[in-house]
Amino acid sequence: MKELFLRAVRGERTERPPVWLMRQAGRYLPEYREMRDEYTFREAISTPDVAERVSLQPYERFAPDGVVMYSDILVTVEPLGFDYRIESGVGPVVDDPVEKPEDANREHGDVRDGIGYVGELLERLSAHLGNDAATIGFAGGPFTVASYVFDGGRDEARRFRARHPDAFGELLDAFADVTEEYMRFQEESGADVIQLFDTWAGELAPDDYREYVLPYHRRLFDAVDVPTVLFVRNPNLDLMSESGADVLSLDWTVDMSEARDELGDTPVQGNLDPARLFGTRESVRRETERVIDEAGDAGHILNLGHGVMRNTPVENVEEFVETAKTVER
Amino acid sequence: MKELFLRAVRGERTERPPVWLMRQAGRYLPEYREMRDEYTFREAISTPDVAERVSLQPYERFAPDGVVMYSDILVTVEPLGFDYRIESGVGPVVDDPVEKPEDANREHGDVRDGIGYVGELLERLSAHLGNDAATIGFAGGPFTVASYVFDGGRDEARRFRARHPDAFGELLDAFADVTEEYMRFQEESGADVIQLFDTWAGELAPDDYREYVLPYHRRLFDAVDVPTVLFVRNPNLDLMSESGADVLSLDWTVDMSEARDELGDTPVQGNLDPARLFGTRESVRRETERVIDEAGDAGHILNLGHGVMRNTPVENVEEFVETAKTVER
Repeated sequence: MKELFLRAVRGERTERPPVWLMRQAGRYLPEYREMRDEYTFREAISTPDVAERVSLQPYERFAPDGVVMYSDILVTVEPLGFDYRIESGVGPVVDDPVEKPEDANREHGDVRDGIGYVGELLERLSAHLGNDAATIGFAGGPFTVASYVFDGGRDEARRFRARHPDAFGELLDAFADVTEEYMRFQEESGADVIQLFDTWAGELAPDDYREYVLPYHRRLFDAVDVPTVLFVRNPNLDLMSESGADVLSLDWTVDMSEARDELGDTPVQGNLDPARLFGTRESVRRETERVIDEAGDAGHILNLGHGVMRNTPVENVEEFVETAKTVER
Repeated sequence: MKELFLRAVRGERTERPPVWLMRQAGRYLPEYREMRDEYTFREAISTPDVAERVSLQPYERFAPDGVVMYSDILVTVEPLGFDYRIESGVGPVVDDPVEKPEDANREHGDVRDGIGYVGELLERLSAHLGNDAATIGFAGGPFTVASYVFDGGRDEARRFRARHPDAFGELLDAFADVTEEYMRFQEESGADVIQLFDTWAGELAPDDYREYVLPYHRRLFDAVDVPTVLFVRNPNLDLMSESGADVLSLDWTVDMSEARDELGDTPVQGNLDPARLFGTRESVRRETERVIDEAGDAGHILNLGHGVMRNTPVENVEEFVETAKTVER
């Protein structure tokens, strides 16, 4: 089904939409939680054997058309000398947050050296999947990843931008350098598609987005030859359209029909509210069919509007994938 | 300057934009922090003498054209039998969150009885300000306030909606009943303008917004004769436009020029990124002038795109207000 996936990415008409779920390898699966009794999150993502197993867990259950590598957008903080840990109930916490302009001036080491395990993971997945499913790599967008190196997250990132606009630009430049290298590495390692999660870029005013987000998107999508997908929460579709990504991944706050009118032939991905997977199985099918129907039969990859939520009922993930596979056009 | 304010609300051309700031009474002022050494947050908002003093603190410093009552959107949980407290670093926490459908079925007591102190506060402010500034009341939108009675906030609200759509509707009905009564009470008590903060309604998918947000907006704005303002974060402008509010308050993610093109003559409020007030005083003036310029000279109330942030430099709030007062058209 890799070919089905790639045809949708090219905007072609497909007999059914290819389907995968953001964060499909993860916290809603019992076999995942068992693995997590043995390994910390960072151990798990940096051990190719474990990460491969976790990436394939949802594939073995539901056979989606794409398998996303089990990893984290924060791996790109490491080559810039930040260390981070995942705090339960809080999320990622960086140990030495950026506070002063000097903290933003960063040299990066060899990207491939530090996070070479991602290359091995992609090679394994690609070899395992062959033509049966697309191997999906991903990276965090510079603004989004940078927002985690401030104590205070996106709010503090925006305050720092106001206080030190030049240093903020230098920090994002450094993240963009690492991310470009990282995306090339993923391409070389066998990723069929690479998704850029600039999840929080929509928190910026449009002027700031034009200055601190859009130029990096253009550069990053230009740097690789494999097809690319851009995901932004609460997006400005005009600004997403200028990114050069092949596919725009829409969150659930976007009306799919209106987005189609606005975006023309641009392939789209999405966009069911992940919370909808907590409804009845019938409601999951109905709402999923609605998304498929509104997206039309060309250039649509079915997905959620953001990652699968913790404790999502497994049977509803199954129903979501099954609906894509059995929908009648 | 009350008249200037009301002329802008009616969409008229004004020699300069009226100005106020969301959450202008509050955490960035040293005299406010002194007061908080003596009173808890809930004591302060429910003691008219203290709340009046706090509401007027920014007026005495900067003389904005509107004075917003010092209160909280969560006061409307009380008539529905919820109790809440403000946890430092976390925000509001409700003691008995909604978990089961039965928890959502709520009778409400006499609204004016429980939160009569708000009426007294508005009477005092209105008497004190006379025609010198507009007295601004506010309430939280049903979805937004309801999202705080779930342990897990907006995410859990959306999951509950998926699990129990009818019970979710009942809960919002109950909040709308209380909010309608509360807005009438504010009107009778002297509010010149009432702003509805449905801050998190933009987290809903458009279909859900049409079902669980828009009907309440229409009803609430219909229920009072004083001018009304609607604020939603990450808004869908089309859906905001259908609310019946007199003024749409835009957050900083909206491009003011584009919003003007899209909204035609509808009066607007906003929309500088509150984080911009952490820049230099010159940058505050420049960015504020840009907003004023893009909004044009009719039907614009200058404001931030959300509330003033904690630790905002006082001199930059002053510069923001001064820019409105001295701008050259």
